[in-house]
Amino acid sequence: MLTIAETAAWLKERDNFLILTHRRPDGDTLGSAGALVQGLREAGKAAHALFNPETTPRYARFVEDCWAPDGYRPEHIVAVDTASCSLSPKNGEEYFNAVSLCIDHHPSNTHYAEKSCLKVDAASCGEIVYKVLMALSSGISAKSAERLYVAVSTDTGCFLFGNTTADTLRVASLLVEAGAPHRQLNKLLFRTKTRSRTMIESMIYSGLEFYFDGAVAVSTITREMMKSSGASEDDLDDIASLPGSVEGVIAGITLREMTSARDCKVSVRTSQSVDAHEISSHFGGGGHRFASGFTVEKTLAEVKGELLEILKACFAAQNGN
Amino acid sequence: MLTIAETAAWLKERDNFLILTHRRPDGDTLGSAGALVQGLREAGKAAHALFNPETTPRYARFVEDCWAPDGYRPEHIVAVDTASCSLSPKNGEEYFNAVSLCIDHHPSNTHYAEKSCLKVDAASCGEIVYKVLMALSSGISAKSAERLYVAVSTDTGCFLFGNTTADTLRVASLLVEAGAPHRQLNKLLFRTKTRSRTMIESMIYSGLEFYFDGAVAVSTITREMMKSSGASEDDLDDIASLPGSVEGVIAGITLREMTSARDCKVSVRTSQSVDAHEISSHFGGGGHRFASGFTVEKTLAEVKGELLEILKACFAAQNGN
Repeated sequence: MLTIAETAAWLKERDNFLILTHRRPDGDTLGSAGALVQGLREAGKAAHALFNPETTPRYARFVEDCWAPDGYRPEHIVAVDTASCSLSPKNGEEYFNAVSLCIDHHPSNTHYAEKSCLKVDAASCGEIVYKVLMALSSGISAKSAERLYVAVSTDTGCFLFGNTTADTLRVASLLVEAGAPHRQLNKLLFRTKTRSRTMIESMIYSGLEFYFDGAVAVSTITREMMKSSGASEDDLDDIASLPGSVEGVIAGITLREMTSARDCKVSVRTSQSVDAHEISSHFGGGGHRFASGFTVEKTLAEVKGELLEILKACFAAQNGN
Repeated sequence: MLTIAETAAWLKERDNFLILTHRRPDGDTLGSAGALVQGLREAGKAAHALFNPETTPRYARFVEDCWAPDGYRPEHIVAVDTASCSLSPKNGEEYFNAVSLCIDHHPSNTHYAEKSCLKVDAASCGEIVYKVLMALSSGISAKSAERLYVAVSTDTGCFLFGNTTADTLRVASLLVEAGAPHRQLNKLLFRTKTRSRTMIESMIYSGLEFYFDGAVAVSTITREMMKSSGASEDDLDDIASLPGSVEGVIAGITLREMTSARDCKVSVRTSQSVDAHEISSHFGGGGHRFASGFTVEKTLAEVKGELLEILKACFAAQNGN
């Protein structure tokens, strides 16, 4: 396990990097990759990110000058915000088998890389990349700061989620000081909804189901809802937080029907004493204490039934029954 | 105008304070008052806040141990977050005429106090009170930190609004470090919706109508919707901002049926070049450039028709037609 200083030193001693992001890329993996590429280039290194075919328009502009050209032959492969090789985008599998350094904050990290800089207390990978870049160059450009603000703010819902720490806020403050255009970014990332988003939110709210005296809320997103709302993947950003935002809800479950009726993606968001990671681990998934997820080959109804049984046992155990 | 250090010194040299808050008190005025009373008491001073009869349950617990007992005779009166004497709660008028020190961040401050510590770049009064308390005691208790976190976070929409600065985030970080329970506070203040609120939001979103290529969104709240959702007035907090949050919308109109089918309350929220005040003035209402409103004895359909005519003329004038 490398410290921040060791990670910076490791990067300083090397050159010709390829940065990897995870599939279904979010602001944290793309912002971290965009900033790391930028910071390494500013330090005089050759650095590119492996094109992520699932990059959404929302985040594309923070990383589009980073994509590796055809035929790029990297010497060192660095993965950011990616807990395991199984999270590789389709075009990244061969590279994920040869990762030299992984910078990550997921407790579920499988230590697949030769060396890891893993900080499980960090709310975002962006916070770690910030510190690495500061240790590398003792300064950060406005362009890197912008990308890291995207990383840090999206992973914390603009400093609202339970993973936010004093250190998250401190790093955000330093990023704004370094020139991150936080006003425009906040408007873009958190204060504008597409029509399709309002439609799908409306459907989700009207279909919410409550269990265990309102301690559990289950939201369901069917393929039919996606079709009739016209919602894209971008429109579902942070959609998993909706059920947990209702008063009294301790565990908010989002069930999403993916490519078929037996392809279900589940997000679990919890607060207080309910361990989201533990719940998802029953299905081979994982994540953090308050946010986890998994995919499973079951129908929405089957998964819901099984999850409610697990939650029932979980509440019973807590009540000492 | 006092500096932070001079303000702290002024407080240090005196005793027996009464802290004043503004009418329709928000998290910033109440959190600032609660923290200032607490900090002064910890510094060995007698300090109370003047009871604010409009304090809402949401913020009551951050200030309820501060209210001055009957017959308290203060020596020095300090107002927080209050730009003018006209913002006094009804029971505070005599005190507002004798304010010794005002700690505030509003550019519109009328300098009614004998001395002012006015920082117009601060996003919240809480940030200023934090610095004053640090200068007073070079430390801050978890209890004061909690109250200041309420102040800073509510005035910035949890660091989302355009007033947020690097300094806001820095102070927030230090408050969390000092023991502010930010996770519980964020959940309480920003991440909790009642079920009725989710119901009425769902209805509003699904009923949104768009005009003029999506530049205008109209939301309608009928008496029937209020009844079937079970929503209270509290549940409608900031509901007028919903139509304007949709991508591409320049004018967001909220029409609400009040006591009868011919009792209509209208809110207008605009951005860019559309003047909300001008639109409402056609109906005898008014407000600000980007937010206005009026009530009118017409049906929802009648008002909507008239508003769309006005908006049509407004867009035509802008396009030079």
